[in-house]
Amino acid sequence: MTQRGTLGVAVIGTGKMGADHVRRLHGVTGGARVAAVVDIDEARAEKIANAIEGCTAYTDPSAAMAADGVDAVLIASPGPAHEAALLTALEYDLPVLCEKPLTPDAASALRVMDAELKLGRRRIQVGFMRRYDTEYVKLKSLLGNGYLGRPLMLHNRHRNAAAPTGFTSANLINDSVVHEVDATRWLLGQEITAVTVLRPTSSENAPEGLDDPQFVIFETDGGALVDVEIFVNCGFGYQVQAEVVCERGTARIGEGHAMVTNMAGRWGGTIAQDFTERFEDAYDREVQAWVDATRRGEVTGPSTWDGYAAAAVCEAGVRSQTEGGRVAVQLVERPALYG
Amino acid sequence: MTQRGTLGVAVIGTGKMGADHVRRLHGVTGGARVAAVVDIDEARAEKIANAIEGCTAYTDPSAAMAADGVDAVLIASPGPAHEAALLTALEYDLPVLCEKPLTPDAASALRVMDAELKLGRRRIQVGFMRRYDTEYVKLKSLLGNGYLGRPLMLHNRHRNAAAPTGFTSANLINDSVVHEVDATRWLLGQEITAVTVLRPTSSENAPEGLDDPQFVIFETDGGALVDVEIFVNCGFGYQVQAEVVCERGTARIGEGHAMVTNMAGRWGGTIAQDFTERFEDAYDREVQAWVDATRRGEVTGPSTWDGYAAAAVCEAGVRSQTEGGRVAVQLVERPALYG
Amino acid sequence: MTQRGTLGVAVIGTGKMGADHVRRLHGVTGGARVAAVVDIDEARAEKIANAIEGCTAYTDPSAAMAADGVDAVLIASPGPAHEAALLTALEYDLPVLCEKPLTPDAASALRVMDAELKLGRRRIQVGFMRRYDTEYVKLKSLLGNGYLGRPLMLHNRHRNAAAPTGFTSANLINDSVVHEVDATRWLLGQEITAVTVLRPTSSENAPEGLDDPQFVIFETDGGALVDVEIFVNCGFGYQVQAEVVCERGTARIGEGHAMVTNMAGRWGGTIAQDFTERFEDAYDREVQAWVDATRRGEVTGPSTWDGYAAAAVCEAGVRSQTEGGRVAVQLVERPALYG
Amino acid sequence: MTQRGTLGVAVIGTGKMGADHVRRLHGVTGGARVAAVVDIDEARAEKIANAIEGCTAYTDPSAAMAADGVDAVLIASPGPAHEAALLTALEYDLPVLCEKPLTPDAASALRVMDAELKLGRRRIQVGFMRRYDTEYVKLKSLLGNGYLGRPLMLHNRHRNAAAPTGFTSANLINDSVVHEVDATRWLLGQEITAVTVLRPTSSENAPEGLDDPQFVIFETDGGALVDVEIFVNCGFGYQVQAEVVCERGTARIGEGHAMVTNMAGRWGGTIAQDFTERFEDAYDREVQAWVDATRRGEVTGPSTWDGYAAAAVCEAGVRSQTEGGRVAVQLVERPALYG
Repeated sequence: MTQRGTLGVAVIGTGKMGADHVRRLHGVTGGARVAAVVDIDEARAEKIANAIEGCTAYTDPSAAMAADGVDAVLIASPGPAHEAALLTALEYDLPVLCEKPLTPDAASALRVMDAELKLGRRRIQVGFMRRYDTEYVKLKSLLGNGYLGRPLMLHNRHRNAAAPTGFTSANLINDSVVHEVDATRWLLGQEITAVTVLRPTSSENAPEGLDDPQFVIFETDGGALVDVEIFVNCGFGYQVQAEVVCERGTARIGEGHAMVTNMAGRWGGTIAQDFTERFEDAYDREVQAWVDATRRGEVTGPSTWDGYAAAAVCEAGVRSQTEGGRVAVQLVERPALYG
Repeated sequence: MTQRGTLGVAVIGTGKMGADHVRRLHGVTGGARVAAVVDIDEARAEKIANAIEGCTAYTDPSAAMAADGVDAVLIASPGPAHEAALLTALEYDLPVLCEKPLTPDAASALRVMDAELKLGRRRIQVGFMRRYDTEYVKLKSLLGNGYLGRPLMLHNRHRNAAAPTGFTSANLINDSVVHEVDATRWLLGQEITAVTVLRPTSSENAPEGLDDPQFVIFETDGGALVDVEIFVNCGFGYQVQAEVVCERGTARIGEGHAMVTNMAGRWGGTIAQDFTERFEDAYDREVQAWVDATRRGEVTGPSTWDGYAAAAVCEAGVRSQTEGGRVAVQLVERPALYG
Repeated sequence: MTQRGTLGVAVIGTGKMGADHVRRLHGVTGGARVAAVVDIDEARAEKIANAIEGCTAYTDPSAAMAADGVDAVLIASPGPAHEAALLTALEYDLPVLCEKPLTPDAASALRVMDAELKLGRRRIQVGFMRRYDTEYVKLKSLLGNGYLGRPLMLHNRHRNAAAPTGFTSANLINDSVVHEVDATRWLLGQEITAVTVLRPTSSENAPEGLDDPQFVIFETDGGALVDVEIFVNCGFGYQVQAEVVCERGTARIGEGHAMVTNMAGRWGGTIAQDFTERFEDAYDREVQAWVDATRRGEVTGPSTWDGYAAAAVCEAGVRSQTEGGRVAVQLVERPALYG
Repeated sequence: MTQRGTLGVAVIGTGKMGADHVRRLHGVTGGARVAAVVDIDEARAEKIANAIEGCTAYTDPSAAMAADGVDAVLIASPGPAHEAALLTALEYDLPVLCEKPLTPDAASALRVMDAELKLGRRRIQVGFMRRYDTEYVKLKSLLGNGYLGRPLMLHNRHRNAAAPTGFTSANLINDSVVHEVDATRWLLGQEITAVTVLRPTSSENAPEGLDDPQFVIFETDGGALVDVEIFVNCGFGYQVQAEVVCERGTARIGEGHAMVTNMAGRWGGTIAQDFTERFEDAYDREVQAWVDATRRGEVTGPSTWDGYAAAAVCEAGVRSQTEGGRVAVQLVERPALYG
């Protein structure tokens, strides 16, 4: 495969995210094509494959990865299925874009990391797509130029109009706050060393058994203090905001103030209702960046280490939820491959 | 003194705040006049008195309060002098506007409260002037109409360009965060039950011995969670912001976005450089409201109870700073007079 | 009358604006008192006078101005009554704050100007209160410091929720756009030399006989181009905005973005519903500034010349409405007194 | 060519815009490939072709269009070369995306329209890419839902940091304001019937011979009044804003307030410095939409009629600049094909 060839991608999992990535690779991303789709639901996989020229349906990820014309793998199956698919892809030495989480816990993430270390080169990119959002990229760039001085605090707001049915307190950390875990590590370039979860009184709109909102505090090895308001039944929309407080100034993103109206005694605008509306462009850029890097023979973006570190922080967060108080985060030593 | 008479005010203390209140009562406030000024620096008091028709200078607060034509007292002396002046004013049964803090600690605040309870009627208003700021008033009003549902969280930012020389960690609670203490109690209508102070790495602009910024967390008896970023050497200006997160929405004040410019590759505006610029109107409204209520024979605004509660919360905050961890706030039972 | 005496004011006219100024002078403004009120409706005047210590009711402006204890005059009667009241005040050599318009047309304004010129000193301040609005003051100050370079264009929006019954196209110029006439002259420091009024299709909410909105263009003797959207039945609120476009940048005021809420899929805030809400502080500052200057023995603020120039521009605007096209503005030579 | 085949595109012209479109089609757009590039500079065309698998270089547009594997044409050559290329593409019955302007004047645009009418089906899409900008799309959508009522006025700001050397008053209409011409027609769904160009005093930063800024007024056949501030040497950045004023409210786009910083006494953010920064996403969407429609066998987007109407309005604008006053726009009757 050379820079100029079109990248044949096998998409593992054709649920909501997987189907969306198929649509993206087929109709939005330049330089790639969907060569294979994999789902345990054979009919679903075939229906998708049939609509795309040169695309074959599989139920077995391994068979798809072995197929001719498959140059790379995009994993969008449920989290518990990631480890097996990742290990197989590493056996085939194929580049992978793996939707978050890398794996559901730190131990399994370590096993994947071991396999990649044994292979000796980076093959895996984890789908923390906020790193590809225009506003986050601007914020990262501003922090990088040093104009504001060192970052001291990071305030985050993460609000969903309503959580899916059955969403638990653990989901609130593992599926929602995990984005702030990665954003914190990436923006600040620091590891998270402790997590504390606090709970105000719960909204009457929170389903029985879920405390919502919650307030999460991270400490980092660079001495920064990070707070996250996570409120998954806020009712009014989907809103992700971040403000970094530095020694000489602050910077804030996520206002979403594109169009301003005056109507009926009020000025203002609309709030996005879900993440596809807010982050659609970030997904497009993420997949395009992965395709471009892969065609150049490179691996960029969030690494297996990032996936592992996020899993370890989330484990600590869930423990703070259940046991109360501050929970320290323990990480293995960072391998040179992810230096 | 009837509704229609002009209120003769004795101003105790003619330092920065006291002199400003003299200017305000003399030239800005309707319905009042400065009848007496008091300062241990006799020359300073006389210089001010001489410039105002019908104003006499004193060095002894008690003499000023006994003077003919003095209908009310404004205390703007240093905090440690407040208790004596307040007790004297209560003896003379005079209405008082007392600059914050009521007194420097909870024990002395309780003594003042006891004296007012013995008198049997409210005489004292404490100078928490944020309650008179247009934006805070709007926020309070919005919370009151119930449209947003119950408040669950309150995020505060309190930033000064630079702290005065000698400003300590205790000042940071007692002189800065004390405003958020009162704003929290007033906006939410709840008492603060515990305080936790966290410290990120300190800015290189913080003077030796002062950890700055700090991050303060309040818990309330209504189950709300309140956080305060206090950063008194932020460098860029004076900025006070608050966002209340409720069950059905949020509301934020303090952006200060009156004038927007486009210049040299940037859009935006200026940030106030100190509290007199940001809160000048609030001071004007506070004093006018006090004069108006006093002329009607009423006492409104923050009470001795509010001054005491703030002192108790600040004591807990300073203990959290020095001892670490969460410190519970203990309040005496609330007397019916302040119900 | 010295700097330190209280200013005794006679208020002529006790309709909506007059009564509001009585309230302001009595209870908000420092250094002044209402010494007399005048209205052709004797009962109304007496009712107001009786509620204020030391205030006498009159039906004849001249009698009030001659009364003991009257140091200054505030004229808030209907426009057609202004000329007579102003000429009487000049005879008594009393300082005057005259609500806009100075007089209803340029010819009568010239007669008042002649009388003041004969007296030989400024006595009259015209009530163009936007000059006292905090945001306009900031804009003026920014233009004055030269940082943005010369002003080239000024875009204005002037929107009312709904016009009063019977509001005509001429009112739209004389009562609404007149504020932009003065704001233009004051902000730019230039005279208006021509007016063109354009008319888009009218809103279905415009009453029969009124074209609304209209679009007004001023040319100035400094070569600036000024446009005014005037829309007095916009439905959504009262909104006054201005953007000056200069050689090196622009500056905009009037967004009114004090409190931002998130609710029900929308972010934003409320729009003021009328001018008392938007400009209450400006009125307070205007009257306070007039009282302060008068006590110092000075006359500041918009002059008789400003009242005359506004009348001349409005006359040209009404002609452009009725005859179409561009109408040049003719001004007499500016007397040195107003230099 | 079916929905599922990859679209082979011949790109005519490989200057700044052409080279950018080659990059886009090759690496960003899904479902398309660059099959041919054409430039009179043979070396330049070959250099580009050599870097892309399956791409051939030509100097003759006709030869490229006749080549095997060329399914569609993107014209990015200078305006005067458009007519010939368009007529050739119509002869080959190929779908075309033609960068604006369609042709440099109304007469040549009419000749292209005649050829397309003779062919009997739409083949040409004109590159008015603002129709693909997220904010303009939101504004169009809001106007379409009728919630704001009929549009009455449209205020536009179009500012460039600095114009290219040699930019003339005619360029200012034909190359800059032409975007507002199309945006007006598209947003309002109305034809422009008259143009008036006004000139304030010129900025000292305007090059000799160019009056800058200028103020352009459109009237439409629906009675709307449209104003455009065009300021191509504003110095501070690239800024495109629009506010539609309707019967029940207004809507404004173009603030560009993604990231807000606090620094050194100022809040605010950065302004884009050129159109590639501001409208890069719009170009991506435009080309993707063209590729998608073409693969479905459809032609969408701005038509030859839109290109012709814009040319006619611009001709009137340039006449108003040179002759002064209001110039009526004359259009031929709209053919049913563009109904």
